[in-house]
Amino acid sequence: MAGGQSLVYRGQREALNELNVEEAAEKSKAETPLTDRLRGSLRCSGPRLKNCVLGFFPVLSWLPRYSFRDCALGDLISGLSVGIMHLPQGMAYALLAAVPPVFGLYSSFYPVLVYFLLGTSRHISVGSYAVMSVMIGGVTERLAPDSNFPLWSNETNGSVMVDVLSRDAERVRIAAAVTFLSGLFQILLGLVQFGFVATYLSEPLVRGYTTAVAIHVIVSQLKYTLGISPKRHSGPLSLVWTVVEVCYLLPETNIGTLVVSAVSIMTLIAMKQINTLFPKLPVRIPAELLAVIIATVATWQLSLDSKYNVEVVGKIPSGLQPPDLPAVSLFRLVVGDAFALSVVGYSIAISMGQIFAVKYGYQVDSNQELLALGFSNLVGGMFHCFAVSCSMSRSLVQESTGGKTQLAGAVSALVILVILLKAGELFQQLPKAMLAAVIFVNLHGMLRQFTDIPTLWRTNRVDMLVWVVTLISTILLNADLGLAAAVAFCLLTVIFRTQLPQYSILGQVQGTDIYKPVEEYKQVRQVPGVVIFRSSATLYFANTAMYAEALAEKSGIVVSKILSLKKKDEEAKLKRAKEAAGNGLELKGQSESEDKSQVIEEDGPPDSTLPHTIILDLSPVNFLDTAGVKCLTTIQKDYGKVGVEVLLSGCQNCVIESLERCGFFGEKVTKEQLFPSVHDAVLHRQLTVTSATRERSQTETQ
Amino acid sequence: MAGGQSLVYRGQREALNELNVEEAAEKSKAETPLTDRLRGSLRCSGPRLKNCVLGFFPVLSWLPRYSFRDCALGDLISGLSVGIMHLPQGMAYALLAAVPPVFGLYSSFYPVLVYFLLGTSRHISVGSYAVMSVMIGGVTERLAPDSNFPLWSNETNGSVMVDVLSRDAERVRIAAAVTFLSGLFQILLGLVQFGFVATYLSEPLVRGYTTAVAIHVIVSQLKYTLGISPKRHSGPLSLVWTVVEVCYLLPETNIGTLVVSAVSIMTLIAMKQINTLFPKLPVRIPAELLAVIIATVATWQLSLDSKYNVEVVGKIPSGLQPPDLPAVSLFRLVVGDAFALSVVGYSIAISMGQIFAVKYGYQVDSNQELLALGFSNLVGGMFHCFAVSCSMSRSLVQESTGGKTQLAGAVSALVILVILLKAGELFQQLPKAMLAAVIFVNLHGMLRQFTDIPTLWRTNRVDMLVWVVTLISTILLNADLGLAAAVAFCLLTVIFRTQLPQYSILGQVQGTDIYKPVEEYKQVRQVPGVVIFRSSATLYFANTAMYAEALAEKSGIVVSKILSLKKKDEEAKLKRAKEAAGNGLELKGQSESEDKSQVIEEDGPPDSTLPHTIILDLSPVNFLDTAGVKCLTTIQKDYGKVGVEVLLSGCQNCVIESLERCGFFGEKVTKEQLFPSVHDAVLHRQLTVTSATRERSQTETQ
Repeated sequence: MAGGQSLVYRGQREALNELNVEEAAEKSKAETPLTDRLRGSLRCSGPRLKNCVLGFFPVLSWLPRYSFRDCALGDLISGLSVGIMHLPQGMAYALLAAVPPVFGLYSSFYPVLVYFLLGTSRHISVGSYAVMSVMIGGVTERLAPDSNFPLWSNETNGSVMVDVLSRDAERVRIAAAVTFLSGLFQILLGLVQFGFVATYLSEPLVRGYTTAVAIHVIVSQLKYTLGISPKRHSGPLSLVWTVVEVCYLLPETNIGTLVVSAVSIMTLIAMKQINTLFPKLPVRIPAELLAVIIATVATWQLSLDSKYNVEVVGKIPSGLQPPDLPAVSLFRLVVGDAFALSVVGYSIAISMGQIFAVKYGYQVDSNQELLALGFSNLVGGMFHCFAVSCSMSRSLVQESTGGKTQLAGAVSALVILVILLKAGELFQQLPKAMLAAVIFVNLHGMLRQFTDIPTLWRTNRVDMLVWVVTLISTILLNADLGLAAAVAFCLLTVIFRTQLPQYSILGQVQGTDIYKPVEEYKQVRQVPGVVIFRSSATLYFANTAMYAEALAEKSGIVVSKILSLKKKDEEAKLKRAKEAAGNGLELKGQSESEDKSQVIEEDGPPDSTLPHTIILDLSPVNFLDTAGVKCLTTIQKDYGKVGVEVLLSGCQNCVIESLERCGFFGEKVTKEQLFPSVHDAVLHRQLTVTSATRERSQTETQ
Repeated sequence: MAGGQSLVYRGQREALNELNVEEAAEKSKAETPLTDRLRGSLRCSGPRLKNCVLGFFPVLSWLPRYSFRDCALGDLISGLSVGIMHLPQGMAYALLAAVPPVFGLYSSFYPVLVYFLLGTSRHISVGSYAVMSVMIGGVTERLAPDSNFPLWSNETNGSVMVDVLSRDAERVRIAAAVTFLSGLFQILLGLVQFGFVATYLSEPLVRGYTTAVAIHVIVSQLKYTLGISPKRHSGPLSLVWTVVEVCYLLPETNIGTLVVSAVSIMTLIAMKQINTLFPKLPVRIPAELLAVIIATVATWQLSLDSKYNVEVVGKIPSGLQPPDLPAVSLFRLVVGDAFALSVVGYSIAISMGQIFAVKYGYQVDSNQELLALGFSNLVGGMFHCFAVSCSMSRSLVQESTGGKTQLAGAVSALVILVILLKAGELFQQLPKAMLAAVIFVNLHGMLRQFTDIPTLWRTNRVDMLVWVVTLISTILLNADLGLAAAVAFCLLTVIFRTQLPQYSILGQVQGTDIYKPVEEYKQVRQVPGVVIFRSSATLYFANTAMYAEALAEKSGIVVSKILSLKKKDEEAKLKRAKEAAGNGLELKGQSESEDKSQVIEEDGPPDSTLPHTIILDLSPVNFLDTAGVKCLTTIQKDYGKVGVEVLLSGCQNCVIESLERCGFFGEKVTKEQLFPSVHDAVLHRQLTVTSATRERSQTETQ
């Protein structure tokens, strides 16, 4: 029945303009004033306060309803598995951050506990993360380079003995300060509900960025893998200089370290392959833990450190350190890095969190996630941690081993606590090359992202450009400046895309009210006397000039030319009149005027070859700024001068409002020149023209 | 007849999807390959070469056709008037550029001649311009501050005698270098057809910027008006420090200079008022020239310089100086300023040029204008000029006094040449305060731009924000950095505007095929069972997350919730089945499941309160990136899971292409789910639903 009805009302109706529609549909004018809306959002009440507290401490709402029977076992197993992964990853990522390994374990403990209390995602594993760690490493090495801590230096061969203890203490201080500050940024962003900043990090940008950071990570770990000590470089192009330096030092490779690296990497890959090939194994092999234990035992038994000079982790202090206020004096130096860390850390965590939320059907609150991560880092910063985010590998393990709530994270933190209190010293003989191997193997996923390039080439070249530019800028300018450059470029692509629109003349698909570009379809017919013009993009300051040019080009009506011809024509006529009066003999002007008089007849009916109407289809316009309105006004006036009427169609309400506020409508131009669809405008124009000709023919016959 | 026909074909037609339309309208697939297009644009031929030469030297095409009878007199009068204005303006603007006055005269000569040969605008008066001069002044004072040229210093009271000669020589060298470089930039931009960079300078931005520069100019001239010598400040916030310094030095004001200033300003304003009030005077009073002459004579007769210590222009060398290659070594230091100069100079000239072109019906070629200005500056830079643009006041005089071609500019250059060769020394006694007065009076138009703020507040608040931010950033950060910050902000507003779109549910205007937001119209009716959703903005990476959220919120269909309820429901049923089998007595699960079972029935028909269709109106979408396509794919899949069909409507062809390339269409989703208009989608859906219910009822009755 509904279908039948709709076919009926399609039948006959008048061509409507916006004014008709507004009257028929009774447009409501009253809007809620801004003050009322503000007041509404600031109102305070009992239930509201309760919601607020529950919102800030999600643990208060989910823990009381925790179902032991359903979740406890899964959370326990998952927590243990993730805790075991935290150990080697934490230590390895501490190397990236250029701080002693034990601080990686701290970072796997305090922030995880805070996130357990405040986080809304049930499956992500917060803690140390390669990308964040290498960004921290960039800061610590920039502000506390080896050269600042000479213990003893030999000026003849330029070798320097570094005071490692005070250097590391300073680096920990810097890492804690930048972590604290990034937490502060995240909290501030969360409080002003700026969760949306992460939306500027589009997927191609994030993938290009993480790939570039993976390359930074690999280059920074080469020294541990090869057992060499290249100079530290910082600032733009430091990656290139480091690679050059490493190549230069290749002959000095420590064979013992290289062997350990090769064996570690191969063992890890083999064990991970087994996990992948046999997904139905009763337990997942804890590849990294096994490798770490084997490497430690082997180094200890074979005395690799003393015999072959293989660098090991060294003393791991037992127990925890008391909290400390961060070094506020450093904030000034690290503000940029801290901001980059806060945005990157958040965007990685939220994207991972949203994937799981969709999969398991729950909600993650983007602003609460910002607060949760912010407090994790803030507290972490006070306990000598470095900035955390969510690790993809650990999160996948947490989910696949049956983790169902944030409790799994708390369990993993307890595992790390036990290791910190009791088992830390067992890993003193762990070779750093082994940790580098852990990092390499964990990065293979990021390097696989290079296959994005051919995929994006096929699907969307602009996105591919963003990917590649992000990669290159991050490689050349490092993680902080590179990210800023990439975001700027990414935003510019949006501008470019709206700056190079497709302009097209629309024609009618025969027998329908559908209008399609005449260039792209063969069987569309231009309505006689009507030019229908559409730009594929919003009309705003960056493309108004092009819009007017394209309209003139596509419609073939160049107002200035017509006007100047008209003017010359008038002058010529005047001259002829004068000549006739003075009986002059100059014929040049006349012959000139005859050439052009065919274009337009002064005061006569408009040239029949000229269209009588231009319809601008504005349906793709998202907003109008003053430049856009001015452009439309100019078009209306200019074409009006040569007798062409300009109608607008398909304006959204916000566009109509902008037109109204900018004074587009006046005596000459009213809302009657505005139509809800192209077809309405065409119908209106055809009807008026037909009736005009009918009237004219009637008066003529009379 | 046409109208009648159109009313008929409106009558009955099937609901069409994009596939039908493509077939009916015979979409053409073949596109010109990029290589062919490139080849086409690079082809070389005789006529093409001729056009190229004529295009580069427009003078070759218009001078041979020059009509002496029509234009000569107007061009001569106009050229003389403008030349007379060049004299005081050139000298005054030289003060802004912090170089001796004679170099302002050079700048009114060489570049004007070059523009005569290469320019395409017939009415703009190229030459010294306040905004450009103050930007140059910023560079010269930064790179050659007074403190670099001590001749003699008194350490007890801290006063320093400056070696003015060598300081000025250095400043001229710097000004010439930055001018040369900005010319080079303009030529490069012109060669790569980058005339469009000026489009980033939207009108509110340019007006806010020129207002801020006017304030910079006024502050920099206060010292001449008051006869004091504040310290020079450079870098961000220098304006603020200068104002503070001037206030501090107010008691040291030179009364003689102040009197000269006051009298000059009042005389100038009075004469300009006469010009404005009596526009029909036979000749326009050359206010500035008269004032300059009177001031010079008065100073000379009253010996103001020696008696009252009024600072005068001083020696003006006669004749011209030989050209010189610019100091390439300085380029590195001024590259940013040169780029800002090239963009600002061009954008002011082109906007002025286009105003006249539209008024008089001719074309200005934006890329040729870039080349013309570029060569003007390049040649100017070799002849010790500072960067030029188009002065609004002179251009208006050039037009109003009857100038018809570029020849007027050439005449004005000859006037300056005569002054340079013969009459320069007459102006040695001209007080600098008089020149400052010329500047002030010429700036009143720019200060009047402050009225933009209330106008823009009423018409477009985002544009007002751009205006104000540009003003503040330019005042605080100076002309170069401030411009960069303003452009960045202006581009960000575009992003913001598309990031905060209006999301609306559309309903049908009764009895028509027009769909309008239900929130804004009272008499629109939501089609039963169909949710029609539209975002006012393009769907791209920065707003995909919001799009999905808004759809869920507005449609009331939260897929994740429905799915989780469904899941619990299933589990509860399973439990009940088990309990029934094991005769268990636990009733908790059952009561829980009963609460939720009303929402969705497992395996039964979809909940009747749920709509069966979502139609996404994508007509405002300008382009789709991979994030946009992914968002649509996710929506399609997610809502499909709960039995809601998602249809797309109103896609532009470029959007359809993006969907195709990103693999949006597959087995389940075809182009049959794409409709040219919302109404087609509604019709299609209503027909299929009606026929389905009819079939069902038929089978039931059977």
